[in-house]
Amino acid sequence: MHKFEADLQAVYEEMVEWRRYLHRHPELSYQEVETAKFVANHLRSWGIEVRTGVGGNGVVGLLRGGSAGPTVALRADMDALPIQDEKTDCAYGSTRAGIMHACGHDAHTSTLLAIAKVTSARREELTGNLVFLFQHAEEISPGGAHSMIEAGALESVDAVYGVHLWTPFPVGHVYTRPGAFMAAPDEFAIRIQGKGGHGGLPHQTIDSVYIASQLVVNLQGIVSRQVDPIESCVVSVGAIHGGTSFNVIAESCVLSGTVRTFNPSLREEVRARIERITHATCEMSQASYELDYKLGYPTVVNDALEAQRFTKVGAALFGEDRVHESPPIMAGEDFSYYLQHKPGCFMFVGAGNVERGIVHPHHHPKFDIDEASMLNAANLLIGMALDYMANN
Amino acid sequence: MHKFEADLQAVYEEMVEWRRYLHRHPELSYQEVETAKFVANHLRSWGIEVRTGVGGNGVVGLLRGGSAGPTVALRADMDALPIQDEKTDCAYGSTRAGIMHACGHDAHTSTLLAIAKVTSARREELTGNLVFLFQHAEEISPGGAHSMIEAGALESVDAVYGVHLWTPFPVGHVYTRPGAFMAAPDEFAIRIQGKGGHGGLPHQTIDSVYIASQLVVNLQGIVSRQVDPIESCVVSVGAIHGGTSFNVIAESCVLSGTVRTFNPSLREEVRARIERITHATCEMSQASYELDYKLGYPTVVNDALEAQRFTKVGAALFGEDRVHESPPIMAGEDFSYYLQHKPGCFMFVGAGNVERGIVHPHHHPKFDIDEASMLNAANLLIGMALDYMANN
Amino acid sequence: MHKFEADLQAVYEEMVEWRRYLHRHPELSYQEVETAKFVANHLRSWGIEVRTGVGGNGVVGLLRGGSAGPTVALRADMDALPIQDEKTDCAYGSTRAGIMHACGHDAHTSTLLAIAKVTSARREELTGNLVFLFQHAEEISPGGAHSMIEAGALESVDAVYGVHLWTPFPVGHVYTRPGAFMAAPDEFAIRIQGKGGHGGLPHQTIDSVYIASQLVVNLQGIVSRQVDPIESCVVSVGAIHGGTSFNVIAESCVLSGTVRTFNPSLREEVRARIERITHATCEMSQASYELDYKLGYPTVVNDALEAQRFTKVGAALFGEDRVHESPPIMAGEDFSYYLQHKPGCFMFVGAGNVERGIVHPHHHPKFDIDEASMLNAANLLIGMALDYMANN
Amino acid sequence: MHKFEADLQAVYEEMVEWRRYLHRHPELSYQEVETAKFVANHLRSWGIEVRTGVGGNGVVGLLRGGSAGPTVALRADMDALPIQDEKTDCAYGSTRAGIMHACGHDAHTSTLLAIAKVTSARREELTGNLVFLFQHAEEISPGGAHSMIEAGALESVDAVYGVHLWTPFPVGHVYTRPGAFMAAPDEFAIRIQGKGGHGGLPHQTIDSVYIASQLVVNLQGIVSRQVDPIESCVVSVGAIHGGTSFNVIAESCVLSGTVRTFNPSLREEVRARIERITHATCEMSQASYELDYKLGYPTVVNDALEAQRFTKVGAALFGEDRVHESPPIMAGEDFSYYLQHKPGCFMFVGAGNVERGIVHPHHHPKFDIDEASMLNAANLLIGMALDYMANN
Repeated sequence: MHKFEADLQAVYEEMVEWRRYLHRHPELSYQEVETAKFVANHLRSWGIEVRTGVGGNGVVGLLRGGSAGPTVALRADMDALPIQDEKTDCAYGSTRAGIMHACGHDAHTSTLLAIAKVTSARREELTGNLVFLFQHAEEISPGGAHSMIEAGALESVDAVYGVHLWTPFPVGHVYTRPGAFMAAPDEFAIRIQGKGGHGGLPHQTIDSVYIASQLVVNLQGIVSRQVDPIESCVVSVGAIHGGTSFNVIAESCVLSGTVRTFNPSLREEVRARIERITHATCEMSQASYELDYKLGYPTVVNDALEAQRFTKVGAALFGEDRVHESPPIMAGEDFSYYLQHKPGCFMFVGAGNVERGIVHPHHHPKFDIDEASMLNAANLLIGMALDYMANN
Repeated sequence: MHKFEADLQAVYEEMVEWRRYLHRHPELSYQEVETAKFVANHLRSWGIEVRTGVGGNGVVGLLRGGSAGPTVALRADMDALPIQDEKTDCAYGSTRAGIMHACGHDAHTSTLLAIAKVTSARREELTGNLVFLFQHAEEISPGGAHSMIEAGALESVDAVYGVHLWTPFPVGHVYTRPGAFMAAPDEFAIRIQGKGGHGGLPHQTIDSVYIASQLVVNLQGIVSRQVDPIESCVVSVGAIHGGTSFNVIAESCVLSGTVRTFNPSLREEVRARIERITHATCEMSQASYELDYKLGYPTVVNDALEAQRFTKVGAALFGEDRVHESPPIMAGEDFSYYLQHKPGCFMFVGAGNVERGIVHPHHHPKFDIDEASMLNAANLLIGMALDYMANN
Repeated sequence: MHKFEADLQAVYEEMVEWRRYLHRHPELSYQEVETAKFVANHLRSWGIEVRTGVGGNGVVGLLRGGSAGPTVALRADMDALPIQDEKTDCAYGSTRAGIMHACGHDAHTSTLLAIAKVTSARREELTGNLVFLFQHAEEISPGGAHSMIEAGALESVDAVYGVHLWTPFPVGHVYTRPGAFMAAPDEFAIRIQGKGGHGGLPHQTIDSVYIASQLVVNLQGIVSRQVDPIESCVVSVGAIHGGTSFNVIAESCVLSGTVRTFNPSLREEVRARIERITHATCEMSQASYELDYKLGYPTVVNDALEAQRFTKVGAALFGEDRVHESPPIMAGEDFSYYLQHKPGCFMFVGAGNVERGIVHPHHHPKFDIDEASMLNAANLLIGMALDYMANN
Repeated sequence: MHKFEADLQAVYEEMVEWRRYLHRHPELSYQEVETAKFVANHLRSWGIEVRTGVGGNGVVGLLRGGSAGPTVALRADMDALPIQDEKTDCAYGSTRAGIMHACGHDAHTSTLLAIAKVTSARREELTGNLVFLFQHAEEISPGGAHSMIEAGALESVDAVYGVHLWTPFPVGHVYTRPGAFMAAPDEFAIRIQGKGGHGGLPHQTIDSVYIASQLVVNLQGIVSRQVDPIESCVVSVGAIHGGTSFNVIAESCVLSGTVRTFNPSLREEVRARIERITHATCEMSQASYELDYKLGYPTVVNDALEAQRFTKVGAALFGEDRVHESPPIMAGEDFSYYLQHKPGCFMFVGAGNVERGIVHPHHHPKFDIDEASMLNAANLLIGMALDYMANN
């Protein structure tokens, strides 16, 4: 239901080719040098103004429309993951050992390239400008979004949109929610420092394994007792490591974990609770500790009006029954930084397809997408941009 | 106060030499090939009947006395530990990387050699026979004692004595206690099998780190609630390892620990409790587990009459105020197997000397002994044997 | 914005009088005999068809409108609480020791009486019928709603509405939410049966206080680990009682608690988890237990279309900025039973007023309402009914 | 094997009569008025110098022997317990509702009366003096021993002996141990002050039941981790009480418990640990607390030489195989105060008899003794006194 639908359909084969090329040549976060060149070269070839090295390996394209109007930014991320591709009989499997586009960023990049191509060809028809944000390093905190913004990527931008292809959702459907949509994912590491000694003489030691175990148990009380039951919050300890022998009390024991929240004040409170519980649990046995608490990305908070725009645009494109209010998602995204500066919306585009065996979750060694989802993503992004331009 | 005191004093320098030679050339448990040769060659050179390869690398010497009488066995252990010697400026430091006599078995062996030398020289004066048990593999379960006994090492033996040099006790003093003296040290390893998953989605997982932590906490209840307070018992978890990432719930988590008891029925009960608690803790979260429970050496139980003999002989040798009833010791010893077959006594001989800086505990990389303790040990062992012969 | 607004305003003084009369004469759940008579007499005096003793002390009035149309039921609850009124200088304080309208049901009843009076006076103008549900026993499970429905209270009813005056919300504002709105509040009681004995001899006992304490700690894992973080769920232990002396291990210990959920399948799952955790925690120490799990009211689930009607009607009455989507409420309500049978909506009407010191929470001994909220409640209820009639 | 054996045998029937009279007329601790009169009258009737009201209801008799020599004190306690006698068909059952000699103090008193009678009749033959300590209030801290000592009961006393009849041990046997024999029984009460609230809104509360439960679990770590495994120590929580309703978070929760130790420095350490663990557990949830820690009697520590005397005297009286080294006993006794001032020995005299159904533990409503044990107790006490006189 917008003027570029046929154009996008026409470049679909190319979009698939680009995606498969990138899939074969993945680059880790902060190392997206070739991918950035690939993107920049294409953009330049279509006459788009390009800035490279924006806040790192970021690439920003600017397409000035034929008529004055708002400037709308669309974002794709470019980095891959340190995972070994296990899609063994796949023609476009990763050619790089231990590196894989296991989250779909290759497809995000191709989607945005397709939009750039078709819109640049008909730029005169645009009432406003498009900014193409090809972001590096989404997977690893502190992430590329923050530094790209600091490097001016959002200057003169009025609204910003982004998508994530999502295999747990079926291809053909689209999702978002107003307000808090994706969690703030924080990280903590705690080293309990006890006093080692003979396994048969615990009274001469400070047993760090016991203390760490108490701590894991005590941390459960945060979510069960100290968080409003209508708020979403997770405190998980992912790893615990202490001791080298069955009969020697361990000198120290290390925990690491993650906290997921949507509400900034709860986020601060949980952080304080973890510190308090760690302090008290160690004090109980006169152990000491180091707590390293690393704030991850902020919560992705969608503008309420932009979420309404999503509902309207999505329904026009895919039909009302294919547009959904998503539940909050416990994963994080540094798209949140763009939304701290500009109104906008981050949206999920279904990319799973049970019939075709496309069922693996993100970050799985056999992860793949239904490539048709790229077309949906492109239509949604440009649809949002055009609607914004038409109404602002 | 016995007829060999002067003889032992006379071979003291040699005893020290042997000990330092062995200290420089340590061999790990079950690998005591050169040490066994060293021992056997010496014994043979003194005309002692020697069996080698007894139940492994064990060496048994038989010295027949001039007159008929009881046969008394004396035991020394020969194996070293996988520890890097850190006595850097010591002339007799280990020459083998990562192997060290950090428990004093070198001195035990030299002590028993000295006894063999002096008694063989005056064998006609013995009313009975001496058996010299040079045992391999005391440090690692199942230990050499058991296999040496199976290979006939205690045949026709009437009583058996052994000592441990002990640096936490001051040189010049000797210690034992009637009945249960050293603990039965058992070992357990538990693998909690949960279900891994996203750190933000704990409800889709079975969190093995949480379950393992609960288990460590629950195990405390054995000693605090389920053991008679007048019995000694320890349950320690020495190591816990689970998970590889802060934001991924760990699929599995592994604990290993030790149990120390003196009472065989309590030992069985604690084992059963650990199994019950592990089972129930896993059941609570629908996890599965593997529990590997390995019985270590039995409790060292001294014969009450032989402990009285120790008091008498020790007082005669060192003075009444240097003979002590030891508290129970939480460490284990496979000397316990000999005592399951024959009356006897295992004794501690002080080997520490604060003034001379000999303060490091056993198994420490800087462990050393006050070598004068070897003379005390030799006198105590031969004193016990002569007293037994005189009274049986 | 409806035809009865002025009429309601005109009976406001009477509404206040009724409410104060009822406030002075509260009756406990299942004992609302005088209140039911009070209601029935009034209804009959206005020519309304009355059934009494409906499923207990319930009273149902039927007002047939002048024209054919749908039948809409409006509900008020009538019971008071076993709380001593502490509004000491209040002219309309409870005259009955230990009984008090500390939840506002007196005002609910008066509100519905007011509606009955004004609509019965102009019944010819109604296109459809009104059913007035004066329900007994909302405070105590199993509650009056269920038995009134079984006694036919909803026969030929097409839609059902109810309100709760709510002091945490300010007077003048109204609230509800589509879908799950109020929690299903379940109740459990667990008796841990151990084995008593001497406080100094724990090994001869099964320590029920220790086991109960472990259980409270273990129950925290349900919400923290086993519930989807985007779902609301509470498991709280309100009381624990065990033991009579500091130096005697307690034979038994009793816990009681509550579970709050919105999702029926989660509700079942949590119940099963509590049973599993109780079973395993007791098994760990070979204790036995009795678990009594009592399901409370179902979740209050508002019809989505009726919630939209609320938004429309509320905005017309009070202004858009005074109509709110409420967060889910952790309290329960047996209005849920009506909504299991008929479309409808349960709504909160702000009754707090900080300026006037009306700040005490429900069930507080000093609880009171801003009586102006009754007028708002009456307008909202009749507004919903009229809108339903106009559109169905 | 002493000169009064026949005399004691001769008064056995009288001893039984006295005991049964006292059994029928028990008096609670600090209320032993009639019992004290009973004792004083008897003593006076035998020409013994009597002080009454010593430190309370204590009675002290002084019997001067015919020849100069040491002064030896023998002690009996007189108080009964707040227990309902359930020996329903017993001719000498308690006549006082809810009061019972359920610990054998009636028999202790009768035993000492018998000694007083027979020795006073032949006082000329005594080489030294006897002091008879009839002590009030052994059952309740602070106990009568302390105040009797302060009132001069031990003045000019050289040694002090006491016994406890003990039904878990068989009649005919006697027991003690050198050094620490009976535990120091301390008492603690902890009030956790949280913040009450709605069971469905735990985040608005500080859940005292949860915190108290954590505390009970945390206290287990004292014995399991922080006490030398060769020391005896118990920390038991006997009672826990918090909350009044299943769906209201409890404002406060109260624990009470007992600590049993033998080693004074460990006693202090455990006290400090309980305080530290309570503090930290509360701090974790920002609760406050009150901890009331009440030191009970000190450890009963027998003089080593006096314990040897017991072995000798006991063997002479009952045969070597009926004299036993007792394990440490977890119960407490205020006889400990006497032993803090004078050398002496506290001894257990077997009073159980399985064949005759005398099997109930102390403080049981059906408690009884084999009365023949009184004769053994009398012989042991006077035997110890005579041996002391003969050797000092």
